[in-house]
Amino acid sequence: MEHGIFNASQLENWDQSLLRELSNKDVVHENVFDQFGAWNDTAPKKAIVEFVQRVTEHGSPNFVPEAERIATFDNDGTLWAEQPIYIQLAFALDRVKALAPQHPEWKDKEPFASLLKGDLKGALAGGEAAIFQIVTVTHSGMTTDEFEKIVQDWITTAKHPATGRPYTEMVYQPMLELLAYLRANGFKTFIVSGGGIDFMRVFAERVYGIPPEQIVGSSGKLRFLMRDSKPVLMKLPDLNFNDDKAGTPVGIQMHIGRRPIAAFGNSDGDLQMLEWAKGGSGVRFALIVHHTDAEREWAYDRTSFIGRLDKDWKTVFPFGSK
Amino acid sequence: MEHGIFNASQLENWDQSLLRELSNKDVVHENVFDQFGAWNDTAPKKAIVEFVQRVTEHGSPNFVPEAERIATFDNDGTLWAEQPIYIQLAFALDRVKALAPQHPEWKDKEPFASLLKGDLKGALAGGEAAIFQIVTVTHSGMTTDEFEKIVQDWITTAKHPATGRPYTEMVYQPMLELLAYLRANGFKTFIVSGGGIDFMRVFAERVYGIPPEQIVGSSGKLRFLMRDSKPVLMKLPDLNFNDDKAGTPVGIQMHIGRRPIAAFGNSDGDLQMLEWAKGGSGVRFALIVHHTDAEREWAYDRTSFIGRLDKDWKTVFPFGSK
Repeated sequence: MEHGIFNASQLENWDQSLLRELSNKDVVHENVFDQFGAWNDTAPKKAIVEFVQRVTEHGSPNFVPEAERIATFDNDGTLWAEQPIYIQLAFALDRVKALAPQHPEWKDKEPFASLLKGDLKGALAGGEAAIFQIVTVTHSGMTTDEFEKIVQDWITTAKHPATGRPYTEMVYQPMLELLAYLRANGFKTFIVSGGGIDFMRVFAERVYGIPPEQIVGSSGKLRFLMRDSKPVLMKLPDLNFNDDKAGTPVGIQMHIGRRPIAAFGNSDGDLQMLEWAKGGSGVRFALIVHHTDAEREWAYDRTSFIGRLDKDWKTVFPFGSK
Repeated sequence: MEHGIFNASQLENWDQSLLRELSNKDVVHENVFDQFGAWNDTAPKKAIVEFVQRVTEHGSPNFVPEAERIATFDNDGTLWAEQPIYIQLAFALDRVKALAPQHPEWKDKEPFASLLKGDLKGALAGGEAAIFQIVTVTHSGMTTDEFEKIVQDWITTAKHPATGRPYTEMVYQPMLELLAYLRANGFKTFIVSGGGIDFMRVFAERVYGIPPEQIVGSSGKLRFLMRDSKPVLMKLPDLNFNDDKAGTPVGIQMHIGRRPIAAFGNSDGDLQMLEWAKGGSGVRFALIVHHTDAEREWAYDRTSFIGRLDKDWKTVFPFGSK
């Protein structure tokens, strides 16, 4: 089981759900790698450290050159909280309300009608199609620069409904430490998430230390044009890429072009990314964050609408770690 | 004109076409940045150095943090030669010949029939559609790993028809020096090219010092699946993205998520990338390699089928560099 997928049971004692409560929220990705302090001294931490030692030891048969030390992380539920709803969905819902005066027709059109009456459950009754509609109308029709400003304004003021904290504080301290620890050991860290690529880029560098060019995510189509003699990229209402499930290895190949040697996720949507990482030669590492702490965070898995984790990880991988 | 687009006439004296003839072809991107020696001491070199000094000087109003020092380079005709035909097209033509025994139907089907008779001109008479067909049959139907090996095998043995040199030596020494010079000054260098992303990744790190995750290019669709219990990515015969002309700013946004502050191209296909780079705020730099040296390289522009350059750069940009 070393360097493999952990059983959920191995993670029961893992202190993964400590929400960070730093007063200085602008620099969270520095000065933590030598601490690694939010982790209990259990199997996952030991396995991570042993894996990193094996691939970074010069002369070892498991040595991996720095250029190939690629680590990929899901975002929602892996790096930050995804309960009670995806944070990007909370953004979209707020945007629907802000845009409603310009769309009188929404009063009679689902999922907008329910949403504007405050009936979130009714709005989301349409499932993924309803979410897709809400995301489309709130993520297109503006330039990429305009969208960036809209997200920036929202994320600096919006608060999480359960904690009252800014969403950018709803990130997992152990994962921040893990990101910094890997980078200190020559890894290049990437986000590979079903979340919107342009949405995540607004905060990922400040919050996780991951620059825009190391974000892989879902996206809408773009069109380049000149507007008022200035070049702009318009966000179109058409899906370009869905970076979820079997899309994740595709996104990795498109953006990174190298197979990760370590991958971190929390739900069924991350399974193929972990398979892809594990399927390469040499020593590989894959980890699933299992949300079990209902008191300090949220406990959910097999029956959750968001971040569903319903696979028996003992039998998911027919191949070994080499 | 400083820090702006150069007129073609300004580049007439630029020694840009010296093909490198290094005996040690495996390490070409190191130990060159302090030489900058293949450049004549004319306006382009001076402008590059002045631009770099302005954006790297701490405390200056033009200072740009390292994370935002993004420089993008076209590949064909900018970093390496594209005459007498695109190098990737030479690869595809060789692959058609290698695959012909498995495709008896090609004997009666254009553009393959002409090609297999040695009539390149006849094969390419079908224009872009013919090229697209040739590229499709030679770039799909295998896994990404298999394709990488095919390209690797070809590029280590194939020779340029005019010089008899390996294609990876058909790179422009001044541009290698420029890449290294920019990186030594905290820039992150990217390729943004109409060439195939998976094709360029095979050699770009070794030849240019640009890793796979910093390559933006055209691509076919991919499908993730399990084959013989191993995860693979199959290359499909469908176009995913055409990273040319108005596609280049889209590719930049998708992969980099930041607007370049410097961009380098050589043909009309690079125009929008240069517009996009120049359209941002602050000091920006854009440069066009104009091929004028018929003796040591090739001279071509307005009427060329490949790498056509037929714009009046004095009037292309209605906005200044701010």
